[in-house]
Parts: sequence; structure tokens; C-alpha cells
Amino acid sequence: MDKAGWYTEEWADQGSAISLRVKDKVHDERSPYQHIEIYETETFGTLMTLDGLVMVTDRDNFVYHEMMSHPALFTHQAPRRVLIIGGGDCGTLREVLKHDEVEHVDQVELDERVTRVAERFFPELCAANDDPRAHLHFQDGIRWVADAEPGSYDIIIVDSTDPIGPAAGLFGQAFYADCHRALRADGIIVGQSESPLFHASLIKAMHEALRGANFLDVATVHFPQCTYPSGWWSATMARKDATLAGFREQACHERAFATRYYNAGIHQAAFACPEFLFKTLL
Amino acid sequence: MDKAGWYTEEWADQGSAISLRVKDKVHDERSPYQHIEIYETETFGTLMTLDGLVMVTDRDNFVYHEMMSHPALFTHQAPRRVLIIGGGDCGTLREVLKHDEVEHVDQVELDERVTRVAERFFPELCAANDDPRAHLHFQDGIRWVADAEPGSYDIIIVDSTDPIGPAAGLFGQAFYADCHRALRADGIIVGQSESPLFHASLIKAMHEALRGANFLDVATVHFPQCTYPSGWWSATMARKDATLAGFREQACHERAFATRYYNAGIHQAAFACPEFLFKTLL
Repeated sequence: MDKAGWYTEEWADQGSAISLRVKDKVHDERSPYQHIEIYETETFGTLMTLDGLVMVTDRDNFVYHEMMSHPALFTHQAPRRVLIIGGGDCGTLREVLKHDEVEHVDQVELDERVTRVAERFFPELCAANDDPRAHLHFQDGIRWVADAEPGSYDIIIVDSTDPIGPAAGLFGQAFYADCHRALRADGIIVGQSESPLFHASLIKAMHEALRGANFLDVATVHFPQCTYPSGWWSATMARKDATLAGFREQACHERAFATRYYNAGIHQAAFACPEFLFKTLL
Repeated sequence: MDKAGWYTEEWADQGSAISLRVKDKVHDERSPYQHIEIYETETFGTLMTLDGLVMVTDRDNFVYHEMMSHPALFTHQAPRRVLIIGGGDCGTLREVLKHDEVEHVDQVELDERVTRVAERFFPELCAANDDPRAHLHFQDGIRWVADAEPGSYDIIIVDSTDPIGPAAGLFGQAFYADCHRALRADGIIVGQSESPLFHASLIKAMHEALRGANFLDVATVHFPQCTYPSGWWSATMARKDATLAGFREQACHERAFATRYYNAGIHQAAFACPEFLFKTLL
């Protein structure tokens, strides 16, 4: 927060930056893992940053959280057991638990303080934390997956920070191989995969690592995300023994819960691959 | 450009801003209509601003220019005569002229200086300016359409600045009624319609004005646009006597020209309406 009242996130290697006008910084702590700050902005509601990077704002988090969850859950025929790696703000967890078919969710977040701070400043994102199907664990997600029973999950969601520091391992083939083992035969993994404009080479590397870990089908969905670098974000999905094409379209149309970005049309649209990305992924 | 070498565009009413790191300002002039500035950025190539607002950068203009042109041109069965209102940087004109079916394009830009500056600093966007099918006029677009022969165009593209100042009239029902008259029976109008996240009410107003001007079908396409407010942008299309559903998909697949964002999958995807926008437009 500068003297003029702006929070600025600089994407140094991309020569660009985004700023949000803030009224006040309302929380500042250093957890064992990172620097957690909460601001009240003028027009984006509450903002959480980790190590100076935007994680979530009230105004635009709905797109990210819906697109990290519903495409995978409506692609799977019967998503009962879900694992979320990261996801400390609990917004993805809330979306997952909107699905009545889901019986059990393990969320494995390294930093308990992120969740405790989210519970205080983003209560609506944490509205499902007390759901009896939700099981919050605060430990290393890579270790959790390595130790998981084979075939114990239908869906694994990697809701991580950028592929630097502790999260770097969440983008590697060894981790994906463990995820492959932990998934059932028709299981789906989905991980946030950065900006198509800024990080196409990362998306390509993820595709290669997921195929290298023996996933049969890999695809990237993309969506606007105003406060993330370039304003455009993606999630990359892979499926163990089945295709990602098709989804439970009727169930999606008839869903009993509210969404703000996702719907059946958006589901199909999000898989459309921009020409430059298609060529990058060839 | 501040002392630290950043160009910043503040979206004051949205409490947010984007910054691009610049190496140098290479041009600065005040035309009779606006302040035209050209910067060399670190990672976005050349940048043109009008009255301090980003118009075009080398790096990301392809999405906007392709999405302002190809969805409309591949929806129309035989786009022969095209009118572009605005479009002074000539990027949309270049995309339109990639279509061999197009026989004649009138481009009516208020400010000749924008085009002359673009010819100097964005030569690749102006690569088609010498095409014998291209007819550049520098005058008021609203007047041009009012004076146009009835049924004289297949497509009208409103590639304007924001709906303030001279461009405000390009978003009103009286202008759309003149466009309706100037279009053939199966004619299509498409206009840039700002950010779905920031300006949903403007998109709704455009839909109402276009329907009020007797267009039969109205639809909005959306796409990422890194350097425009919110990083997410839209174009709203309307058709005189026919539906916008369906397009020349085979011709799109077989197109002989290169695109970087648009393709047949993106065409269909771009029409998918986010849930919140669908509810706004109800």
C-alpha cells in the first residue's frame, strides 16, 4: 500500500502491474510459511495477499473458484471423494460441497494461518468449513498424496499458489504420478495453470508432465480473472483412464445451487483452445 | 510515464489500474480530437494511448481485432460490403480484408492522425491499408451511417473508444436505427461493448437499444484482453432479419489465413454467456 492508497502487484518478468485502491490494511502477519496481508479495497471488497501477491478478492474470486471445481465435478459421473491440495481460502471447498454427490473432501493446506485468516475476513468463502463432509488437514500436500491409498479419490484439485517456492513441486511429474496412483480409474486431476498469455510454456510443460505420469487425456480450461496476472487464467485437467470430453450436461442445467460464472454453456466454452495455445501445445 | 518508468492507466470508478513498464515515449501529439501518445514498452511492444487510455499494444491486440471481425464475418453467409466505424489503428481492417469474400470496406475514422500515427508505429496493423478494397474516410461515423444508402452493407463494425465524448453516440438507439437501415436484410452489426465484469449494465443497455432499433437477434461475445479494464472485454452483435446462431464452420476450419486467438472452437465458445451476465440481460 503506497502513500496514495494503492496496493500494487508487479509482474516483474512481464513488465506489467495491477493496482487496487485500498481504504485500509486490516491485517498483517507472518506465518511460518508466508506473509499474509488483508486489505479493504474501494471496489473489490476484501483482498488477501500472500507474500505480496493477490490470492483472492471478494469481487472476482467467484470465477476462479467455480472454474477450479465445477468443470471437473460435472465431467466426472459420480464424484464422491475429493482431495483439495492448497485451497486455504476455502472458496474451492465451498464450491465442491455444493455437489450433493460429494461424500468426503480432504483439504490439505500447508499453512493453517491462511485458513484461519480467511475464516475471519472471508466468512462467505468459509461457509462450508463446518460441513461434516469437509476434513481440513494442515500439512504438506505432496506428502499427503504420496501416502494416499491407491484409488482413494475421484477428483484431486490442486488449488495452489504460483509454481515457485513450496508450490513448485505441485507442478512436477513425480507429484502427478502420485496423484495418478491416488485416483480411481476414471479419476480427474485439475490444477491451476497460470495465464495463457503469460505462461503458455508452463501450460505446455504441465501437459507433458501429466501425460508423462500416464494420464490418458489432458485439457486446459480458461477463464477471465481480473486480479491475476494478465487478467486471464487457466486450469489444466487430466483424466486417468477416460476422456475429458462430455459432461453431465443435464445435471448441470438442473443443478440446485447458484453459480455466478459457470453454467453448461461456459463448461463447453472453457475448453475451446485459442489458436496460439493450440499451436503451443502441439 | 512516471519517474520509475511505468505507464499507468487508472480506472478511477473501478478503483483499479494497470501499469506497463516503458522504455521510452516515442511520440506525443495533440490532434484536433485527442492526445495521441506512443510508448515503447518493455514486454508489450509498442503502445498507443488516446487521452491517456490504452488503445493498442503489439502483444495483445490480436485478440481484440480478431474477435471484432471474424465472428461476424463467419456468421454472415457472404460478407461483401463492410463498414468500419472508428478502427483508426487499422487492425480490424486488416482482419476483415483477410476474407476473400469481402469486396469493399469503408472505414470511417474521425481522427486521421490516429491512422497516420498507426501507419508509422504499427505498420503490421496497417499492412492492408493499401488493399484496393480498402477505402479510408476521415469524418464523422454517425453522419456517414445516417447518409448511407439503405441496404448498402452486409456488416457494420463499430470499433470505437469508450462510450464517452465523441464515441457516446455510437452506443445509442438512434445510431443503431441508422445502422439497421444501412444494412441489408441479413446484415450484422458488431460493436465493442466494454468489460463484462465492470460494465454489464452497459452491455444490457446496448442489447435494449439494438432491440429497440428493430434488430431481431442480439448476442455478446467475450474474450480476454489483458490491457483493457478488468482484462476481459466483449463485443455485442445484432442481426437485422436473421439469427446469429450458427456460422460457416467449415469455411472457418478451412480458412487460408492465420489467426492467433480465433478459430472455430473459439467462435462458438465466445457466445457462451456467464451466469451473472445472463441474469443481467434477462
